[in-house]
Amino acid sequence: MAGSGVFAELLDGDTFKYYADGQWKRSTSGNSMTVINPTSRSTYYKLSVCTKEEMDHMFDAAREAQRAWARVPLWRRAEALHKAAALLKQNKDVIAECLVKEVAKPAKDSVTEVVRSADFIDYTAEEGIRILSEGKCLVPDSFPGNERNKLCLSSRIPLGVVLAIPPFNYPVNLSVSKIAPALIAGNAVVVKPPMQGSVAALHMIQCFHLAGFPKGLISAITIKVADLGDALTTHPAINCISFTGGDSGIAIAKRAGMVPLQMELGGKDACIVLDDADLDLAAANIIKGGFSFSGQRCTAVKIVLAMDTIANKLVEKVNVKVARLSVGPPEVDSDITPVVSESSADFIEGLVMDARQKGAKLWQEYRREGNLIWPILIDNVRPDMRITWEEPFGPIIPVIRIRTIEEGVQHCNSSRYGLQGCVFTNNIHRALIVSDAMETGTVQINSAPARGPDHFPFQGLRDSGIGSQGITNSIHMMTKVKSTVINLPVSSYTMG
Amino acid sequence: MAGSGVFAELLDGDTFKYYADGQWKRSTSGNSMTVINPTSRSTYYKLSVCTKEEMDHMFDAAREAQRAWARVPLWRRAEALHKAAALLKQNKDVIAECLVKEVAKPAKDSVTEVVRSADFIDYTAEEGIRILSEGKCLVPDSFPGNERNKLCLSSRIPLGVVLAIPPFNYPVNLSVSKIAPALIAGNAVVVKPPMQGSVAALHMIQCFHLAGFPKGLISAITIKVADLGDALTTHPAINCISFTGGDSGIAIAKRAGMVPLQMELGGKDACIVLDDADLDLAAANIIKGGFSFSGQRCTAVKIVLAMDTIANKLVEKVNVKVARLSVGPPEVDSDITPVVSESSADFIEGLVMDARQKGAKLWQEYRREGNLIWPILIDNVRPDMRITWEEPFGPIIPVIRIRTIEEGVQHCNSSRYGLQGCVFTNNIHRALIVSDAMETGTVQINSAPARGPDHFPFQGLRDSGIGSQGITNSIHMMTKVKSTVINLPVSSYTMG
Amino acid sequence: MAGSGVFAELLDGDTFKYYADGQWKRSTSGNSMTVINPTSRSTYYKLSVCTKEEMDHMFDAAREAQRAWARVPLWRRAEALHKAAALLKQNKDVIAECLVKEVAKPAKDSVTEVVRSADFIDYTAEEGIRILSEGKCLVPDSFPGNERNKLCLSSRIPLGVVLAIPPFNYPVNLSVSKIAPALIAGNAVVVKPPMQGSVAALHMIQCFHLAGFPKGLISAITIKVADLGDALTTHPAINCISFTGGDSGIAIAKRAGMVPLQMELGGKDACIVLDDADLDLAAANIIKGGFSFSGQRCTAVKIVLAMDTIANKLVEKVNVKVARLSVGPPEVDSDITPVVSESSADFIEGLVMDARQKGAKLWQEYRREGNLIWPILIDNVRPDMRITWEEPFGPIIPVIRIRTIEEGVQHCNSSRYGLQGCVFTNNIHRALIVSDAMETGTVQINSAPARGPDHFPFQGLRDSGIGSQGITNSIHMMTKVKSTVINLPVSSYTMG
Amino acid sequence: MAGSGVFAELLDGDTFKYYADGQWKRSTSGNSMTVINPTSRSTYYKLSVCTKEEMDHMFDAAREAQRAWARVPLWRRAEALHKAAALLKQNKDVIAECLVKEVAKPAKDSVTEVVRSADFIDYTAEEGIRILSEGKCLVPDSFPGNERNKLCLSSRIPLGVVLAIPPFNYPVNLSVSKIAPALIAGNAVVVKPPMQGSVAALHMIQCFHLAGFPKGLISAITIKVADLGDALTTHPAINCISFTGGDSGIAIAKRAGMVPLQMELGGKDACIVLDDADLDLAAANIIKGGFSFSGQRCTAVKIVLAMDTIANKLVEKVNVKVARLSVGPPEVDSDITPVVSESSADFIEGLVMDARQKGAKLWQEYRREGNLIWPILIDNVRPDMRITWEEPFGPIIPVIRIRTIEEGVQHCNSSRYGLQGCVFTNNIHRALIVSDAMETGTVQINSAPARGPDHFPFQGLRDSGIGSQGITNSIHMMTKVKSTVINLPVSSYTMG
Repeated sequence: MAGSGVFAELLDGDTFKYYADGQWKRSTSGNSMTVINPTSRSTYYKLSVCTKEEMDHMFDAAREAQRAWARVPLWRRAEALHKAAALLKQNKDVIAECLVKEVAKPAKDSVTEVVRSADFIDYTAEEGIRILSEGKCLVPDSFPGNERNKLCLSSRIPLGVVLAIPPFNYPVNLSVSKIAPALIAGNAVVVKPPMQGSVAALHMIQCFHLAGFPKGLISAITIKVADLGDALTTHPAINCISFTGGDSGIAIAKRAGMVPLQMELGGKDACIVLDDADLDLAAANIIKGGFSFSGQRCTAVKIVLAMDTIANKLVEKVNVKVARLSVGPPEVDSDITPVVSESSADFIEGLVMDARQKGAKLWQEYRREGNLIWPILIDNVRPDMRITWEEPFGPIIPVIRIRTIEEGVQHCNSSRYGLQGCVFTNNIHRALIVSDAMETGTVQINSAPARGPDHFPFQGLRDSGIGSQGITNSIHMMTKVKSTVINLPVSSYTMG
Repeated sequence: MAGSGVFAELLDGDTFKYYADGQWKRSTSGNSMTVINPTSRSTYYKLSVCTKEEMDHMFDAAREAQRAWARVPLWRRAEALHKAAALLKQNKDVIAECLVKEVAKPAKDSVTEVVRSADFIDYTAEEGIRILSEGKCLVPDSFPGNERNKLCLSSRIPLGVVLAIPPFNYPVNLSVSKIAPALIAGNAVVVKPPMQGSVAALHMIQCFHLAGFPKGLISAITIKVADLGDALTTHPAINCISFTGGDSGIAIAKRAGMVPLQMELGGKDACIVLDDADLDLAAANIIKGGFSFSGQRCTAVKIVLAMDTIANKLVEKVNVKVARLSVGPPEVDSDITPVVSESSADFIEGLVMDARQKGAKLWQEYRREGNLIWPILIDNVRPDMRITWEEPFGPIIPVIRIRTIEEGVQHCNSSRYGLQGCVFTNNIHRALIVSDAMETGTVQINSAPARGPDHFPFQGLRDSGIGSQGITNSIHMMTKVKSTVINLPVSSYTMG
Repeated sequence: MAGSGVFAELLDGDTFKYYADGQWKRSTSGNSMTVINPTSRSTYYKLSVCTKEEMDHMFDAAREAQRAWARVPLWRRAEALHKAAALLKQNKDVIAECLVKEVAKPAKDSVTEVVRSADFIDYTAEEGIRILSEGKCLVPDSFPGNERNKLCLSSRIPLGVVLAIPPFNYPVNLSVSKIAPALIAGNAVVVKPPMQGSVAALHMIQCFHLAGFPKGLISAITIKVADLGDALTTHPAINCISFTGGDSGIAIAKRAGMVPLQMELGGKDACIVLDDADLDLAAANIIKGGFSFSGQRCTAVKIVLAMDTIANKLVEKVNVKVARLSVGPPEVDSDITPVVSESSADFIEGLVMDARQKGAKLWQEYRREGNLIWPILIDNVRPDMRITWEEPFGPIIPVIRIRTIEEGVQHCNSSRYGLQGCVFTNNIHRALIVSDAMETGTVQINSAPARGPDHFPFQGLRDSGIGSQGITNSIHMMTKVKSTVINLPVSSYTMG
Repeated sequence: MAGSGVFAELLDGDTFKYYADGQWKRSTSGNSMTVINPTSRSTYYKLSVCTKEEMDHMFDAAREAQRAWARVPLWRRAEALHKAAALLKQNKDVIAECLVKEVAKPAKDSVTEVVRSADFIDYTAEEGIRILSEGKCLVPDSFPGNERNKLCLSSRIPLGVVLAIPPFNYPVNLSVSKIAPALIAGNAVVVKPPMQGSVAALHMIQCFHLAGFPKGLISAITIKVADLGDALTTHPAINCISFTGGDSGIAIAKRAGMVPLQMELGGKDACIVLDDADLDLAAANIIKGGFSFSGQRCTAVKIVLAMDTIANKLVEKVNVKVARLSVGPPEVDSDITPVVSESSADFIEGLVMDARQKGAKLWQEYRREGNLIWPILIDNVRPDMRITWEEPFGPIIPVIRIRTIEEGVQHCNSSRYGLQGCVFTNNIHRALIVSDAMETGTVQINSAPARGPDHFPFQGLRDSGIGSQGITNSIHMMTKVKSTVINLPVSSYTMG
């Protein structure tokens, strides 16, 4: 159970402490805030409300710890990360339980998230020691006019203090995807977990604590974003921001100064289905891509663009599968579970009502109980409907029928989002040409959008983000280049 | 002569036009502004004052041209760049003359700047076609739990429209170092030349025009920064900002949104001289590093930190060389020429007076005529003097005597700047250990700081910038990653 | 005309000299040998017969020149190569004429070979300066137990003297594809041109001579292979052999000692046509792939494996196109020209007769005049026929009908050759899975096998060769690694 | 004890079996051969003498197993390797004991060898999954004349069956340095352990067996080299030879056909000591470099080249340290232990006698008991002595006094060997210039030659070998390139 066993020290009475200076602390504010269980819609956990001073102190400690950490051999950094990964796996059930209660993630998927996170850490540790142990040695004489009288040794060094802001939907996995690259690269990291998901994230942090990282190197702060959000994201001690979430990321980017940004924001991933596609495959992927975790995924299929010659058939196949989805609480591994909050459910409902009112066809009856919304396929969607452009983050899939491939591509490219997209076709030429034409960070051919496997590059264009993730890219992003140039009094060419 | 021959179309009467839509245009504003010759301190050239509408139009045209340019084969892009480079070399004398008149750069150095710029373009073209023609092909099964049933093809694609803002001291070279990588990578580019240096930059742009780049792809705008600067740097059509200059870059970074930034700002490059150093070599590099182009270089030696056991000897050697520097107009290749503006000269004078008043020793008599300031070595400098921390951008070198190596490193790391630094020592161990300890983008061992050769990485830490330049890094910076994932119904391993 | 103009010094009377010590020399042997024009079947050119002493001297001179060349700045090496490329283009017509006369290559294709060779040199020069100016700088602390107290600088250095043996079918192009990487990498090169093609190759060498390479660095030797072949390929001064040709390469490999080998030998490239393929596309590629230069190409389509459901249609389409091929002398750009020698024509005839006798169906009447063989499609080919496994190097395409995809793949993998192969299908999954399963160095999807573009990797498996070519790979192959490890007395981590 | 516990199945009576088909087998030959303990000079272990048929069968099984292994996901291959590494560490004491008895390696060093081997395997597994999961995706339009209508996907695939022949001095470590890269890359491997060291190697193989690798994938064969050596190294089923040892490698290379070779043969590593060197550091490294494992290391310091200005001082310092070396059996961790065989001791003795007779000065009295030779510094060595050029592989260090740096470099470059070398100097310029000038695979600045850390490149020039080792390089060497080219009917540029 959360806060028990090796996690006991996280709790101060019924309130979860924050993590700083290598220990769990109660905030001097004496205040707490609550995490609502999306299923029961009642308070489930309590969190500390940290103060500005506590935040400032965290950054000071982080910077100091970082300077020492940057001098720790790479294999020792990796060793500590492997230990944290092993601890995560050992404690996967407790952490998964938090996910079930905080964000209503189906129980099995919750365990998977923790295990995949541990794998992520292991992979990152090994990737990092390779990236960071290999610099370049350049000579000048490739450039006109130069002799070989210099050696330029360049390598990647840490940025300093990384601010990590993960979202509610993968509070563990999207935390470690920031923490692990930051740490292996020699950075300190301050984590601001999402309100919903904080307790899972704090448990994850405890695994790092138990793995023995130096004090101050990792911190986790729980704050009222309305009060301290700006102070946090514009803190002068920050050397990097890695954020996953919604449009608030754009606001953060606008306020941030000369700080490297890794932002993965919203998406409106289109699924283009051509007339030669394997419709069963397409339908299965629309279901998986659209309804996994009730559509609360950046890379969920958020709009289907079907050639009208096959649209009826496709919709029929999808509908058969929608009917088979189980709807209920996460504890019993329901396919569709309550969305994260009442306001989120209201927003989704608003999109559905707007579409219905403007003439869209709902293949399933609209049904909602509390935060639980039954899955629904909305057909005959048109550009004047909000659902065409907005991101529901719920179990709702709109379908637009298109007459030409170009129309589909054009639609995809008109979105202000550019995260992923997918196209279903068996034709090798069309597959590649459509993929080239779709202006999104990634295009999946014959599968639903997906972030993983985690060593693949992952990036959003336009309002979907900046920078590229994936393990290698994240490590690169969390480092900077430094060079040493050895100047020689005469030319010297390497002989052998 | 400027504005003659193939450059005749740049002039509208005595005013230089701006460049948009593939042609030279007079601004509808009807206004002009003046470029003052730093030597004569009188108006030398007149520039158009562009309007907001003209700026907006430029960005529209840029975006449209970019979409077509991104579909031009790499070798054709390179071909056009090679043509522009050849034209630059052909017209080096006219362009160099502008540099002499606008920024008082010594005549020979002005020619060198143009030639080096042409070499830069050639190298960038060839580098770019290599970077951009080689993507990655990743398989999933290195990550636990995956089969080999996907192929992830990732490549680098253009960002879109790049805003290039070069500084006055290398208005040609630091323009092409932004334009060439932008273009080979498939971007459009909007150039905002520095007031001082605009005419040289516009002539350089004409070489690109004559090379036949598509209309709209390259634009050059001359504006009153006070009026339109913010509108320019926060323009929603911008996909990348590449800026070289002073602290105004920090302000730009703070206002910019989710846009990749390549910023190279000020520096306070330290020269640490250890007691085993070759003092003649050190003295020669202090002279070259500190007084080239009258100290108006980002990577100028801006403070000398000499071990007190050898400081007297070093200072003596430097002073002998200072005495030999010629001072006068750029036309006759004087070593020291007038600084760029009266306000700059006043600023430098202020630093000198402050130091003198606080007890520093001036080895040369302070002398100034108009913008021309005689070179001066300021000894016994202490931390309370402004010259210790501020960047003079003039022919002034402060010397601080240090008792330990650590003191020197510590001083260097206390600066808010972190561009380059150098250390003079013959000892291999000390050279590398000091270099590792100096927290600057680059450390030169036994030579003055230097930006080139241009394929070396070049970057500033802290307030000296963000991102890394150098040809390869600039091309990477001006592209983003896109991936296509081909999903297969079964695992498939490559056999052979 | 061959041997005129800037090529006049190549001739001694009617005999072409060899090239050594930076000059054209008559052999002390006083002997000559003849190049037969495949079209007229009479002597067209005469070549020197070099002696063992001349060969030994060449290698001595090469080694000496190489040691100096390894100390020439990369940009100067590139400059010289660009000059040679320009000279090749200037003299393309004379050199092409040699190709027409020596190997009966169609006139236009002969010019193309020379131009493409010049492009190859330019590309290689620029590729090489990049590969060779970028080494690695490794630190030890990624490996367990190590501190960061070493820096390992590794770079690629020249091998020494490269022996280049090109084949008759591309005597210019497959010479420069060895010479250019060898030279940019700092090696010397000794070229042994093919008997047929020697004169074209010697003219090409003269372009390098005129470009001003140091004397001794490049040599070209014409020998009687029966007399001096072994002495040449086992010469102790050789540091690398780059050979393109037939099975004699295997013998060379067996005799060579501890010398890096780049061997591209025979092929039996299969063209697998699936039932969903675009048959017009397939037929066009079979024609182009099978009959270009009368089938005398390593990567010619040498066997067609057609699914029997579409085989009739495919054969019909191919036959229509065969009927349109022009047959005649190379001077008038005939599609099919005489094969290189009488013995080659006899060999081809033998394969045809064997197949006919064993029951294969010849869709065209067999016709031969001298070395000129009319194109022929041989259908219903079976495993017991020689044409199934042997490489005709003539205008002959065998067709085997297959019942399953696996049968096609299996056939392809049973060959002792493994150069390239191709598969025609529109299905993305089948295309990739078949490509993975075909055990050849390259598989082309929906196009005929092809060596180019020249920066693509190119390699043969099994008896088709060793090593990988393509510009980048060849440069790598012609260099070796050297490392310098700087050991420090204490750990030192790069800070910034 | 050897052959007990989990190793019990290795023994058939008192004879160690060989490993094939995933099991330990007695040879049908019924013959055995003996391993002599170098300390006691009596038989210690017995080995099977395998037959030609058994060898042939091994290769058949290897090829078959390899085809399946090439289809195993990379992470599963890594998993199995990690398991083998863990088993090696678990059983380090038993295996180390074999090393003590078979090759008289000091007990502690024997344990270190096994542990380092396990680390090697772990590192290689993780390195391999990265190298092998990342191919390239090239487009054609960087080369003149091409459109972007192809995608070339290239990746590295297994070679097939690797023959691994490790030497006696590191029979475990130099086995795994061949086996681990071979396996992670998807190859099968046949190991021929050195006579002396076989039992340690067989125990190491058992760790792989217990880790669960598929049967046939790994084999270990013990043969009489005089009978079956040639048949082994020229076996047609071999796709790669990785050999470490002496000059017999050259003979193997000469007989091998078109097979990739990785050869690390002898060395004559020079230690050049300049007059500004830290002589204590130099002396310590000469001792460590020259006498570790009694000089029986490829990278042992095998000749000292000391500037005569400091030679006396250096020799004195070395002699003080020689006097402190303990001499005796390996079981008590003596510094100097018996050399591997009587013939080896005789050879060493021959070199000493030759030098003494020709006038060299022996600083220590020559002393030998059985295979145990006391350490000796031979001074005033001259070019006419055998010790100047031959590799003793014993506790003997010759010193040559040089008058100039060039003389030292020249001497080093005159050796037919070119493995490593080292130079001692504090001067950064001289260090790098001398390193560039020394024609050996690696030059160590201010430390003795060394193979590790194992991810550094390691290679010998001239008669010291071919190819480059080090983890990354070995994996590359044990793979080949395959490419798939997807041809599109039209150009397609990736947009985003």
